[in-house]
Amino acid sequence: MLIVMRQDATAEQINAVAEKIKALGFKPHAIPGSERTAIGITGNRGSVDADLFELLPGVAQAIPVSQPFKLVSAEVKPERTVVNVNGATIGGESLAVMAGPCSVESEAQILACARAAKAAGAQFLRGGAFKPRTSPYDFQGLKEEGLKLLALAREETGLKVVTEVMSPGSVDLVARYADVLQIGARNMQNFPLLEEVGDAKRPVLLKRGLSATLKELLMAAEYIASRGNYEIVLCERGIRTFETMTRNTLDLGAVIVLKQLSHLPVIVDPSHGFGLRYGVIPLARAGVAVGADGLMVEIHPEPERALSDGPQSLTLPMFQELMQQVRRVAASVGRRI
Amino acid sequence: MLIVMRQDATAEQINAVAEKIKALGFKPHAIPGSERTAIGITGNRGSVDADLFELLPGVAQAIPVSQPFKLVSAEVKPERTVVNVNGATIGGESLAVMAGPCSVESEAQILACARAAKAAGAQFLRGGAFKPRTSPYDFQGLKEEGLKLLALAREETGLKVVTEVMSPGSVDLVARYADVLQIGARNMQNFPLLEEVGDAKRPVLLKRGLSATLKELLMAAEYIASRGNYEIVLCERGIRTFETMTRNTLDLGAVIVLKQLSHLPVIVDPSHGFGLRYGVIPLARAGVAVGADGLMVEIHPEPERALSDGPQSLTLPMFQELMQQVRRVAASVGRRI
Amino acid sequence: MLIVMRQDATAEQINAVAEKIKALGFKPHAIPGSERTAIGITGNRGSVDADLFELLPGVAQAIPVSQPFKLVSAEVKPERTVVNVNGATIGGESLAVMAGPCSVESEAQILACARAAKAAGAQFLRGGAFKPRTSPYDFQGLKEEGLKLLALAREETGLKVVTEVMSPGSVDLVARYADVLQIGARNMQNFPLLEEVGDAKRPVLLKRGLSATLKELLMAAEYIASRGNYEIVLCERGIRTFETMTRNTLDLGAVIVLKQLSHLPVIVDPSHGFGLRYGVIPLARAGVAVGADGLMVEIHPEPERALSDGPQSLTLPMFQELMQQVRRVAASVGRRI
Amino acid sequence: MLIVMRQDATAEQINAVAEKIKALGFKPHAIPGSERTAIGITGNRGSVDADLFELLPGVAQAIPVSQPFKLVSAEVKPERTVVNVNGATIGGESLAVMAGPCSVESEAQILACARAAKAAGAQFLRGGAFKPRTSPYDFQGLKEEGLKLLALAREETGLKVVTEVMSPGSVDLVARYADVLQIGARNMQNFPLLEEVGDAKRPVLLKRGLSATLKELLMAAEYIASRGNYEIVLCERGIRTFETMTRNTLDLGAVIVLKQLSHLPVIVDPSHGFGLRYGVIPLARAGVAVGADGLMVEIHPEPERALSDGPQSLTLPMFQELMQQVRRVAASVGRRI
Repeated sequence: MLIVMRQDATAEQINAVAEKIKALGFKPHAIPGSERTAIGITGNRGSVDADLFELLPGVAQAIPVSQPFKLVSAEVKPERTVVNVNGATIGGESLAVMAGPCSVESEAQILACARAAKAAGAQFLRGGAFKPRTSPYDFQGLKEEGLKLLALAREETGLKVVTEVMSPGSVDLVARYADVLQIGARNMQNFPLLEEVGDAKRPVLLKRGLSATLKELLMAAEYIASRGNYEIVLCERGIRTFETMTRNTLDLGAVIVLKQLSHLPVIVDPSHGFGLRYGVIPLARAGVAVGADGLMVEIHPEPERALSDGPQSLTLPMFQELMQQVRRVAASVGRRI
Repeated sequence: MLIVMRQDATAEQINAVAEKIKALGFKPHAIPGSERTAIGITGNRGSVDADLFELLPGVAQAIPVSQPFKLVSAEVKPERTVVNVNGATIGGESLAVMAGPCSVESEAQILACARAAKAAGAQFLRGGAFKPRTSPYDFQGLKEEGLKLLALAREETGLKVVTEVMSPGSVDLVARYADVLQIGARNMQNFPLLEEVGDAKRPVLLKRGLSATLKELLMAAEYIASRGNYEIVLCERGIRTFETMTRNTLDLGAVIVLKQLSHLPVIVDPSHGFGLRYGVIPLARAGVAVGADGLMVEIHPEPERALSDGPQSLTLPMFQELMQQVRRVAASVGRRI
Repeated sequence: MLIVMRQDATAEQINAVAEKIKALGFKPHAIPGSERTAIGITGNRGSVDADLFELLPGVAQAIPVSQPFKLVSAEVKPERTVVNVNGATIGGESLAVMAGPCSVESEAQILACARAAKAAGAQFLRGGAFKPRTSPYDFQGLKEEGLKLLALAREETGLKVVTEVMSPGSVDLVARYADVLQIGARNMQNFPLLEEVGDAKRPVLLKRGLSATLKELLMAAEYIASRGNYEIVLCERGIRTFETMTRNTLDLGAVIVLKQLSHLPVIVDPSHGFGLRYGVIPLARAGVAVGADGLMVEIHPEPERALSDGPQSLTLPMFQELMQQVRRVAASVGRRI
Repeated sequence: MLIVMRQDATAEQINAVAEKIKALGFKPHAIPGSERTAIGITGNRGSVDADLFELLPGVAQAIPVSQPFKLVSAEVKPERTVVNVNGATIGGESLAVMAGPCSVESEAQILACARAAKAAGAQFLRGGAFKPRTSPYDFQGLKEEGLKLLALAREETGLKVVTEVMSPGSVDLVARYADVLQIGARNMQNFPLLEEVGDAKRPVLLKRGLSATLKELLMAAEYIASRGNYEIVLCERGIRTFETMTRNTLDLGAVIVLKQLSHLPVIVDPSHGFGLRYGVIPLARAGVAVGADGLMVEIHPEPERALSDGPQSLTLPMFQELMQQVRRVAASVGRRI
C-alpha cells in the first residue's frame, strides 16, 4: 500500500498518516518527491484496507502495490532517483563512470589509476580492499591499508571512492573511507549485510548476483530501502549461463526491465560482463546505448601484473579510448559524461 | 590446415594444390581473398603434415588451424565477409536491417509491413510462411501461399525476402521465393537441413540455438560452408537462462566473440532477444553500438491481432522511431544505414 | 476438452460423438481405456462448450483440460500407457532396458554389443546409423548399412531395435529396419520430423532437448500424438546447465513431473546424463529408484576405440555389473527387469 | 603439495616436516589417516619443489596436487572422512538423516517434528532460527528463541541439532546451541562466514550455492578446512536452471563427482531439490541409490500452516513413509539407516 499525499499536504498531516500506520503495527516510509510526498507501508502481511487512509486529511490516494518490492518500485515513486554522492551524481542525464583496479595493490598503482580515470572524465574511483576470492589461497586484498590508499587517491583527484564491503562487522570500517559501499555479486543475498548497509545511511552500489533474477535483485534493494536507506544504485554485471567463451553473459535487457520496474539508477559493468579485455569497450558502448546510467570499468597500469582480474582490465590508454567512444554513443542517445 | 597461396600464384598452381589435397583423400575449399587465395582442407581426422604442401609451387605457407571450425574461421580468412543478396549487402560499413511480421498472415498485412519497412530504410523483408510452433494446435503459417505473398511484396518494394525453411524437403520450394534462407533457432543443429541449404547456394541466415554455445553456432555454420556455400550470416537472438522477466537473454557479448573468431557477418534480433515490445528499441540501439552488422526486427500493423509474437512486435510507427534512433547510434560508431 | 464416454457406451454412440466433433470443424481422438473410452478434441482455438456434448447419448462427462497438451496428458487418460514393441513392453511393472553403442561401427561391434546386452537382460538394442554430430568432419554413421547391421543383430538375439531418425525424408527408410524410432535431443522441436513419425505409426522414443522445458517436451509428444500415434516413450537425458564437470545435468525430478502430468512411459539415459563412464552405474540406479520405466545405456566392446561417445560408454562387463546393481534397486521399489 | 609420511614415521619426524614447511613461509596441515599421516601445504603460490621434502626422515613421498583444492581433495586423503557429531556419524556405511521444519515456529511445532523424526529413525533435527528470506517483509525466524527450542527438542529426543548461521557475528551464538553449523546456499561464497565457521571447530554442513559449480563448492569447503576445521559435510540441494516446473534441479550427478574428487561426505536435500511435496520421496530414494551419505528433509506437522516452505514440507506420516522406502533402497545398495 502506498499513501499519496496531496500537493498541499502539511507536515502535520503527513505525520498523522505515519502515526496511523504505526498504530496499526506497520512501518511508514516517507518518500519525498519534487511535487508531493508518498508514504509506503511495510511490515504488513496481506493487504491493508485503503479506506483506513483515504479519509484522513491531506491524503490524495491510497494505492495498492502489485509487486513484492515497494520502496524501490516505480509504481510507488514514478520519478527517477538521482543518487548524490558528495556532489557527484548517479542517475539523471549525465552518466556516472567508475573506474579503477580490481584490487588496490599499492600506492603507485592506485594513484596511477586514479589520475588516468580522472583525466579521462570518470567521477568515481573503484578498487577492492577486501576481496572475495574463490580460493582461500588467493590474494585477499590489502584490507584497511587498501582503504587508506583509496582515501589518499581521493584526496589528490577528488574522485569519489566506491569499494566493496564483505561482512556486517566491517561496514563501519569501510564507511569511514568509502563514499559508496559496494555489495558484490556473491553477497547480493547476504541479508545481514544488506541490513547493515541499510542502516549505514551511505550510498550503496548493489551488484546483481551471478544467478539472481531481476525480482530477487529488486528485493535485495528493498532490504536496504526498508532500513531507511534509499540511496541505492543497481549494477548489471553479467549472469552465469552455459556459455564458456565469456566469463559471464552481460544481460543488457536487464537494464531495460529494471528501469521499467524501479526508480533506482542502473549501471553496467562490462569488465565482469565479458571477462576479457577485447570485449569491454564494445559492451561499454552497448550499455550506454541501451540506457544505463553509468559504467563501472576495471583498469590497471600493468594488467599483466595484476593480482586479480588482469585479463579483463583495460590499460590506462585503452580506458581513455573507451571514454572517447562512449562519449559519442552517449551523445547519440541524449546523454553526456 | 590452411594453404595460403602466394599473391602471384597462378590458377594452375592453385589447382595443383587442390589436386594434391584430393589425392590424399581430403577435400579442398578454395577461399578467394582480395589479395591472395587460401585453400582450406577438410575431411582429415587429426593433423595433416605441412611439409606435403609447403614445397609446392605457388604456396606461401601451410598453417595449422587451432579451432574445430575452419572455413568460417577468421584465422583462415582474416578479411571480413560481405554477403551480397542481389545487390543488398550484409557486412561492411552499412547496416543491414530486416523487418517484417513474425508470420505472413494476409496480403494486406505483408504489404503494409513491407511498405513501412521500405519507407523507414530497411533493405530486407522478413516473414514466416512455415512457422515452427511449440504447440501443434497453433497457427503453422500460410506455407506456399505465404511465400507467394512475400514475393509479391518484394515485387512492389524491392526489399529482399528472408524467410525460414524448416525441413530439407522444402528447401527447393522456399528457395524459389526467398532471397535469403533462414534457419531458425530450433533448427540450428538440424544437420540434414544445414547440409541442404549448404547445397542450395543461396545466402543463409543462421540463428543461434536457444542453448547453443558460440562454438556450436560456428560449427553449424561450418556444416553449411563445408558444402561450398559461404554466404552465411550469423544471428544472435537471445539464449535461454533462468531469468523469466524477458523471453530470452540477448547475449551481445556473443557478437564480439563471433566477430573475433569468424569472418562472417553477425546481426542481432532484439525482438526475440527481449520478447516484449518496450525493450526492442533500446536493445536495437545496443546491438548497433556493440558492433553488429545489422538487425532483424518484428513489426506488425496491428500487433494486438497478430497470430504469433504479437507482444514483441513493434507497430509500424514504432519501427520508424527505431530506425531514427538506430541511425544516430550507428553514426556514433562509424556505421550507417 | 475431453469427452468421457459411459462404460456401457456403444460403438455407435462413440462414433456419433466423433462425428459431432468433426461437424464443429475440430478433430476427434478416440483414446480407448480398459474400462471406458475417452475422446480428445484438438484443432479448437479457445474453449469448446461442454453443453454441446454432455446431452449426447453415451456421454458420461465433458471435461475441460487445463494444460496446453491434451492427448498426452494424465488428465485426459489417467491410466498409464504401456508401449508394446512387438512383444517387449515399455511402461508397467517391468523395466525396459535399451543398450548398445552410440554408433553402429561394424558387424563385429554391433553383434558383440547385442549379445552382451541380451545376456545381461536388456530387451532393446540401441545404435546410431544416422548420427547428428556437432562437426561436419566427424563420423556421421554408417547410414543404411548401419540399419542392416542392426537388423542382423535383432535376428540373432531377438532384441528390438531402437535407432535415431534425423530427417522427415528418411523416416520410411529407418522404419523399414527399426522397431522404435528415436528422436534425438537436438530434434525434439524439429516439427516436420515429429509430424512424420506421428504418421509412421511406429513406437517413438522422444528425447528431451538440451534446454527444453518439460512443457515443451510434452508439447513435442503432443505433435506426434496429434497425428494419431500414441506409442510414445519420453526420455530424460540431461539438460544443459552452467556445470562443466559433467557433460549434462541429469534432471531426475523431470521423471517425477512427467509421470505426474502425462500417462506416457518415461525412461532415463544416464550415459548422456553424466558423460563419463564412472557416473553411469550410480545414475542408472538413481533413475530406477526415482521411478523411471527403463534405461538407455551406451556400451561398447572397446570404448577407447569408439568412433563416438567413447568416454561415456560402458565396457560389456561393466554393463553386466550395472544390470546386477539395477536389479537390486528395482526390487527395492517394487519393479523388476 | 602433499607430504605423505611413512607408516612408521614418529611424531618427531612429522613435526620436523611441519617446521620445514613453516620455515619456507607456508602453512602445514597435518591430516591423520588410519594408517599414516599426510601433511598438506597451503599458502604457496605456484609449485613447491618435492626434493625439499623427500629426503627428510620419515617421508614416504611428496605428491604434487593437481586440483586447486587440496585439503578437501581425495588425492590428498584417499580414505573417506566420517564426521562424528557427538556420537552420530555422517559418512560411512550408515546413512545420516536430518529432518525438521524449515523454520522453528513454536515449542509445540518443533517438538512434534523432533519426536516424529526420532521415531522414524532420523539422527539429526534440522530447523531454521535465523532465516534468509528473499523479502525483508517475510518471517525471518525466531532467532535465539528458536535456538533454545531446538536445544529443548534435543534434550528430549537426543537428536543432534543442525541449524543455519547467517553472519560471522552470530557464529558464537549459534554454536552455543547447535551440533552442526549449516551454511545455506546463498552464503556458500560468504567468505568471512566460511572463515568464521572454520575457526569454530564445530562440524559444518555446507550447502551448494544455487549456481555454484562443483569446483566452487569444493573451494568453499577448502576455506573452512584451511582454518583447521575438517569436519565438513557437503550438501547437494538443487541448482538453478531454466526449468520452472520444479523449484530447483537436483543434480545427483554432483554426488558422484564430489565423492570422486573429495573425501568429504555428501548428503542430498530432496525438499529444496524439487520444491513440491510429491517429489520429495522419489528424489530421496534416488539420492540414496546414487550413493549419498545422507538426506536432509523438511517436515512439518501442518505444512499448510508453515511460515516458510510449506509446499515442499512432508507431513509427519509422509516422513515415516519416506524412511520405510529409503530403508529398502539403502539395503539394495549396501547401506543402512
